[in-house]
Amino acid sequence: MFVNRRTVTIEWGDCDPAGIVFYPRYFAMFDASTSYLFKAALGYSKFEMLRRFEIIGYPMVDTGAKFFIPSKFGDVITIETRVSAFRRSSFDVAHRVLREDGQLAIEARETRVWAARHPDDPERIKGVAIPDEIVARLSAGN
Amino acid sequence: MFVNRRTVTIEWGDCDPAGIVFYPRYFAMFDASTSYLFKAALGYSKFEMLRRFEIIGYPMVDTGAKFFIPSKFGDVITIETRVSAFRRSSFDVAHRVLREDGQLAIEARETRVWAARHPDDPERIKGVAIPDEIVARLSAGN
Amino acid sequence: MFVNRRTVTIEWGDCDPAGIVFYPRYFAMFDASTSYLFKAALGYSKFEMLRRFEIIGYPMVDTGAKFFIPSKFGDVITIETRVSAFRRSSFDVAHRVLREDGQLAIEARETRVWAARHPDDPERIKGVAIPDEIVARLSAGN
Amino acid sequence: MFVNRRTVTIEWGDCDPAGIVFYPRYFAMFDASTSYLFKAALGYSKFEMLRRFEIIGYPMVDTGAKFFIPSKFGDVITIETRVSAFRRSSFDVAHRVLREDGQLAIEARETRVWAARHPDDPERIKGVAIPDEIVARLSAGN
Repeated sequence: MFVNRRTVTIEWGDCDPAGIVFYPRYFAMFDASTSYLFKAALGYSKFEMLRRFEIIGYPMVDTGAKFFIPSKFGDVITIETRVSAFRRSSFDVAHRVLREDGQLAIEARETRVWAARHPDDPERIKGVAIPDEIVARLSAGN
Repeated sequence: MFVNRRTVTIEWGDCDPAGIVFYPRYFAMFDASTSYLFKAALGYSKFEMLRRFEIIGYPMVDTGAKFFIPSKFGDVITIETRVSAFRRSSFDVAHRVLREDGQLAIEARETRVWAARHPDDPERIKGVAIPDEIVARLSAGN
Repeated sequence: MFVNRRTVTIEWGDCDPAGIVFYPRYFAMFDASTSYLFKAALGYSKFEMLRRFEIIGYPMVDTGAKFFIPSKFGDVITIETRVSAFRRSSFDVAHRVLREDGQLAIEARETRVWAARHPDDPERIKGVAIPDEIVARLSAGN
Repeated sequence: MFVNRRTVTIEWGDCDPAGIVFYPRYFAMFDASTSYLFKAALGYSKFEMLRRFEIIGYPMVDTGAKFFIPSKFGDVITIETRVSAFRRSSFDVAHRVLREDGQLAIEARETRVWAARHPDDPERIKGVAIPDEIVARLSAGN
């Protein structure tokens, strides 16, 4: 599978009164990491991807994370992201957060659905088949 | 187990360009719900609790959530929270998000550690035994 | 002018490593306070308001805040909000944050534009005249 | 004055249902930009800076921003940051946000206080004199 790595510097505003990252911030970082994975594999932005494939996004249906080592502001972490499985209209993503010394700090997983506006009700969302181009690009090596 | 319920109105700033809640925001709501659970059971705030028991907090070690129905801004959700298990220095929390029509929108779980500053190194955190008072109050019925 | 007051409990996740509110969080609270002001004056939600008046929102064009007293998690603040001026397609909002002892903690101001999708380019936004109903309701006393 | 420039890619989670940046997110970006300015001028992180100078941070006392052009997710903005004035225990910061085409999208200003724990009450904060080293480094050219 195609893997994307990016570094993130932990900011003051990411941290809580205990001085460590407020964990919901990690989920925001992971959400962005999934976008950057697609962008790196496809060569165009999520904005362009939504337009091309006429979807509204890939909302989360199931996510989880295990936190092994806390990070504090000023720390630089690497987030390593790949799709771990594709199904007809949903897919799984795996994230690993590594500290500068290479230790594994967090492991996270996501199941997302490839979603379009419901044709009968624009307020609703429905899963649609993931395009072959997407599956092929994300499944290929780097 | 003691159960706390609170209602949350979804705000414009909680939502993403698809018009639904940006899921990391739910984790921030759940984190607050865990605090409100303690406050409701103990009768004093998290701030006071940290001071009394000389802990720095109860950092997350493992969390997960399943999202069944998206919410959009203006929606009012109820978050129902309880401790589902206590161990020596860690505990599990369960959250259920219900829509106004009573449908289950999200199920989430947390494992947290009852944590103090490490006596030998104030930069580090260590799990300490959860006080009996905490276990008793959170385990009692409402 | 119509005034709306709401109380907000400062949460752990609103605060930074100095233990006080990370100030961008106040702007999120103010944005919500502006929505609650409209809701209180009109009797329906922002979601419904956008639909009725065919606008995409009221984006910020100019804002500022003066912070007199910091708040920490567990504190309960009152946010008092009113429209301070209406113009053809823009309006000013004033927020005051009061501590439990009545002291003024923050003063903030906003200038926002009443905005619709541009008829010639759905990617652009354009200011449109604020409906008389909105001006009348927000200008009336409580 | 020393100037720091950094690029920020607007993420999905930075944007609201109108598809543009939820403005409180800009303040979080500006807060980080102020940290990066210090880091670039001093050569060490905010974490290290707080430790060296025994301060708890530089809390905001007055801020404001004018928004000229909205940004949407996928956009890449440049944030240009400098200290615009130093006083004994407070200082002003100016941020300019530039779009990829060079147009000015936002102008923001901050007044912050160089703050330590109050010697008589660790719950309180007090302004202290800004060290000469800080003034010298931030006032020098790049």
